[in-house]
Order: sequence, then structure tokens, then C-alpha cells
Amino acid sequence: MKGTLALEMPGLPVMANVELENALRKLIAERGLPLYRMMGFQLGWVDEKGEPLNHPSPDRTHGALALASAQAVSGDFRPAIRYAVAVELVENFSEIHVDVEDGNTERAGRSSIWWTWGPAQAINAGDGMHAMARLALYDLRLDGTTPDRVAAALKTLDEATLRLCEGEYLDIAYQERLALSVNDFLEMAEARSGALFGCAARLGAMASPQGTPQAADSLAEFGSKLGTARQVAGDIAAFWGEHERDQVQQGRLIAKKKNLPVVHAMATADATTRRRLGDLYVQRVLDPSAIKTVAGMLEASGSRRFAQDTLARLLAEADSALASAGLDQKGTEMLRMAARQIAGATG
Amino acid sequence: MKGTLALEMPGLPVMANVELENALRKLIAERGLPLYRMMGFQLGWVDEKGEPLNHPSPDRTHGALALASAQAVSGDFRPAIRYAVAVELVENFSEIHVDVEDGNTERAGRSSIWWTWGPAQAINAGDGMHAMARLALYDLRLDGTTPDRVAAALKTLDEATLRLCEGEYLDIAYQERLALSVNDFLEMAEARSGALFGCAARLGAMASPQGTPQAADSLAEFGSKLGTARQVAGDIAAFWGEHERDQVQQGRLIAKKKNLPVVHAMATADATTRRRLGDLYVQRVLDPSAIKTVAGMLEASGSRRFAQDTLARLLAEADSALASAGLDQKGTEMLRMAARQIAGATG
Repeated sequence: MKGTLALEMPGLPVMANVELENALRKLIAERGLPLYRMMGFQLGWVDEKGEPLNHPSPDRTHGALALASAQAVSGDFRPAIRYAVAVELVENFSEIHVDVEDGNTERAGRSSIWWTWGPAQAINAGDGMHAMARLALYDLRLDGTTPDRVAAALKTLDEATLRLCEGEYLDIAYQERLALSVNDFLEMAEARSGALFGCAARLGAMASPQGTPQAADSLAEFGSKLGTARQVAGDIAAFWGEHERDQVQQGRLIAKKKNLPVVHAMATADATTRRRLGDLYVQRVLDPSAIKTVAGMLEASGSRRFAQDTLARLLAEADSALASAGLDQKGTEMLRMAARQIAGATG
Repeated sequence: MKGTLALEMPGLPVMANVELENALRKLIAERGLPLYRMMGFQLGWVDEKGEPLNHPSPDRTHGALALASAQAVSGDFRPAIRYAVAVELVENFSEIHVDVEDGNTERAGRSSIWWTWGPAQAINAGDGMHAMARLALYDLRLDGTTPDRVAAALKTLDEATLRLCEGEYLDIAYQERLALSVNDFLEMAEARSGALFGCAARLGAMASPQGTPQAADSLAEFGSKLGTARQVAGDIAAFWGEHERDQVQQGRLIAKKKNLPVVHAMATADATTRRRLGDLYVQRVLDPSAIKTVAGMLEASGSRRFAQDTLARLLAEADSALASAGLDQKGTEMLRMAARQIAGATG
């Protein structure tokens, strides 16, 4: 998936990205062990040898959503910086582990951590980053945040992380299953891709002085729908995207990870289509011509249409959650535009 | 390593083990997804199919130390139950990941998680257990624990987890190195094996109404020395143990993970011994006769003796940290006996 810098997010000041990067670097780059160089590699700052990258363009969509949420709630992203750091570290620890799990040799155009340092170091570096995500939140005490707000933020983050693991469990388990309902799939996508975006948006509201419980709940729902929509948009792009499939999308297809158009066709298409799809899908490797054939079948069975309709429905549900957050018009409009970008950014 | 039940720990009431198990089960066994069945398998409650095991004897040494520490500080283990649950979950998530990292096919006489469910599910199940470790601590709020105490416990746990990852990083990195100083090794062992025991003992003090900051710091030092001693005792037992080497010890030898007698010999023995040891140690697999040869060389170079002296020194340092904790005689004596058992339990 293409990187989305915080600074590219509509309505979010350019400084938001700079401050997020500075806070991330302060937490990680000051530590001496090469373990933290691996983390810096994952975060897009350095190459394999620890040399600074000239044109880093790391994906910070999760952190940016936390900042945008705070900006929309109270007109200031700054109180949410540490929260955004925590969410980004959870997203990145998860990416490090997913790359081992799925055997992705590349991510964002560079070698994945396990491909460079081996699976053992990659698993361990991910664990370290998982622990550090919360260290970012303990530092809230330095800003005078009360302990009960710190504890509430930590709990929000851990519950989302556990939900992410539940989604990842289902995603792996579903590899072996041909028959799967659309609802099974969407529940998995909500956990695997929605939970952490929901957490990001909620934390942005929790960080804001003006953030009410209602705003936090509504924005969590907004983020969750948005993250789910992003996975569906990625599923559509994997077959019909404008850009070439990246290694992570390619890896999901090769590993027979489920995606919505295929699940829809296997659940609803005629017997002949389902049999042909099943045959193609149990091949060890889906080569490009097979992917083209599958795409044609999914088009014919109405499954592309269904996935597009689902994407539109999820975005409408995100809009409606956003409308109930009690934000002013400027904040609402800003997040509505951010939502379009986040859901579309997977193409 | 052989399991050590909490109830076997000197001075700790039998009920401590029962209550720890109940609290662990309450957190995990009530959840529905098969993800949690994998965790139940790791924790020793069920077999691969989710059927209850008849004679579970899971290792709960880390949790037991937290309970023993609270018992020694204030005569009551009960306030430390949730803390003990959290420490056990960190230890077990780490074991799940180490088994993938080291390729251990067995643990505690049963298949390891990755060997049964594959590495992808194992990595993810470990991540889920890592997140759940802290969910146990949030529940302290239900008991009326103040948010600042909850936040302090969480931070203690995460800092120890990060230190554990630093130690694991070094342990993996040292596989490739022949030359290593004894101090390098002991720093790794302190991080990899001492940090979480230190955290367990500290949390026991923090959980106790009578736990002073001095008691917490001294017991953290006590636990850290103890955990380091336990790794050294395991290193000695890997060559000269009374029992057959278990799969985890075997895995460490096969993977050329560093252990203290070998590090000492490579740093201090004569050139001939070092060359022969190097030759044996770079073989892909150390077969039993090679291990016997290595053991003889380590004996001759005084490295067995050195490791035994180091073990004795670490235990003396643990005793001296314990003496400065300000406990009454009964509590001190109880933890001194527990220490002997924990350090010896690796044989």
C-alpha cells in the first residue's frame, strides 16, 4: 500500500507530520542497541546498514488519523502526538510480524525486516516495538496527564491490539477454508483492519480537552468502518487497481488470503463458477494470467460490483458515525475528506 | 526446564497456586475464539484438540515469585494475584515466540504451539497473549486500586518486557559470534532471564500495602540476580545435568546459543582448546558424543568451575539484595528458600 504522510491529510497542519516524526524518533533513535536500528529501518528512517535514507516517505496513516481526530475535535492536533506515536508503533509491530507470517519479502519497496535480519530477530524486534507502543503513553505523565486518563488510553490501545490479533487469527485460519460467508469475512476485516483505525480515532478524541465520551465512541465507530473500508478497497485494487500490485497484496493473493470479491463469488455464484474458482484458488501459486482469469469471473458474477457497493456502504456508515460525534462543521468536513483519502489510499 | 508449581514454593500457601490458576483461566478460558484455545494449550490446560489435560503441571515460577514476594512483604499473597497473572502471560508469550525463533518442536514434554498450529498462528497467538498481560492489570481498577498504581505496574511490566527483548536480541546476535566476553554474556543473561524475574519480585512488593519503594527496588535486584542465576544454572545443567536435556536446552545447544561455560572457555582457555571448541561449535548439529567431548574440555579448562562460582556469586548477590529490602525475618527466610528453588529448578 502506498504511503500516506500525515502532512498530506486534508486539514491537518504540515507541522503535525514533523512533530509526529520527531516524537517517534525521540523514543526510538536515542536508544543504542542495534535492536532499535531494526525498528528505525521498519519506520523508514535508515537502510539495512543504519545509514539515513534520503527520501523517506513512511506510511503514517494510523498516527495521522489520531492527529486529525484531535484536530477535528478541538482544533489542535498537539495533545494527540503521544497517542499517535503509540498507534503507529502498534501498526508497525504488527506489520513486522505479518511480514513473517505471510512470508512477505518486501514492504513499501524495501526488504522486510525478516528478509534482512531473519525471522528470529524480526519476531523479537516486533515484540520490542509492541512494548514500546505503551512506553509512549506513560510519557503522557510528563505532560501532566492524569493517571486515570493514561490508564484509559493504555486500555483502549491494548483492547484494539487484542482485537487485531483476533482478526489476524481469523485471516490465517480462513486461508484453509473455501466456504466462508460475507459476514464472516467482514467480521474478520473489521477486527484485522478496523480495530486499530477505530482506536486511533478514539484516542484522538480522548486526547482532546473537548473530547466527550460521545465523540470518542462515535469517532471509534467512524475509524473502525474506515479501516474495514480500507481493507475492502485494497481487495478491489488487488484485482482491478490502477497501480501494479505491491508485494504485500501479491503475498496475500499467493497465500490465498481471503478477499471480499472472492468470498462473495464462492458464496453466491453458480456451481460452475464456484468450481472453477475453487480449482484456480487451490493452486499453489496464482500466476498473473490466473489472476486475470479470476478477475474476469468475479466481474461476471457481480462480485466486483458487490465489493464496490460494500465499500460505499462502509463509507456511508463511517459518515453517519461521524455525524453523531457532535463536532462542528469544519471538523466534520475535515474528517470526511480524510476518510475518503484513507479508504482510497490502498489503491 | 521442569515445571515448578506455585504450591511447591516454600512458605507460599497452597491456595496461592489455585487462585493464580483461577485468575488466569478467568481471563482466557471465557473467551470464545480458538485463538484462546491455543493460549490454553500453551498454559497447560488443554491438548491440541481443546480437551482438558488430566494432570497439568504448568511452570508458574514467575507468577509464584510475584506471589511469594507479596507474601514475604506483607504476609498475604492475594493482592498480587493480578500482577502474577500479568507476569506469567509475558513469560508465556515470550516462550511461544522463542519456540518459533529457536525452532523448538517441544516444550514441557508437549508439542510447541508453532509445531502444532504453524509459525504464523504461533506468532499471532503470542502477540495476543502479550496484549492480554496488561488487560490483567487494568482489572486492578475493579479492586479499587488507584489509577496511578495501575499505571506504575503497567510501566514496570513494559520496561521489563522491552529489556527481555533486548536480551533476546543479544542472544540471537551472539549465535554468530565466537568471541564474547563473560561480561557481554552476563549482561545478555541479566536482560533475557533476569529482567522478568526482577519485575515479578518488584510487582509483588508494589502490590503489597506495606511495600515501600526500598522493598520494591531491593526485591527487583533480588529477582534479577535470581533470574540470571537460573540461566547460569541451566547452562551448567545442559552439560552436566542429572536429568536428560529437554528439548529447549537441546535446541539452544543445536542453535549454538551461547552459554556461560563455553563463553568462559572461548575467552580464557589455551589456543588449542579454543580452536578445538570452535571447530566443534561451528558444526551444524552438535551430536551427543560431541556434547560429551565439549563437556570434558570445559571441565579441563576450569570453565565448569567458573560457571559454578558465578552461580554462587549471583545467589550471594541475590541474598544481599534481599537483606536490604527491610523485610522481617520470616519473610526474608521464605524468599531465601524460594531463591534456592528457583535457581535450581532449571536442572
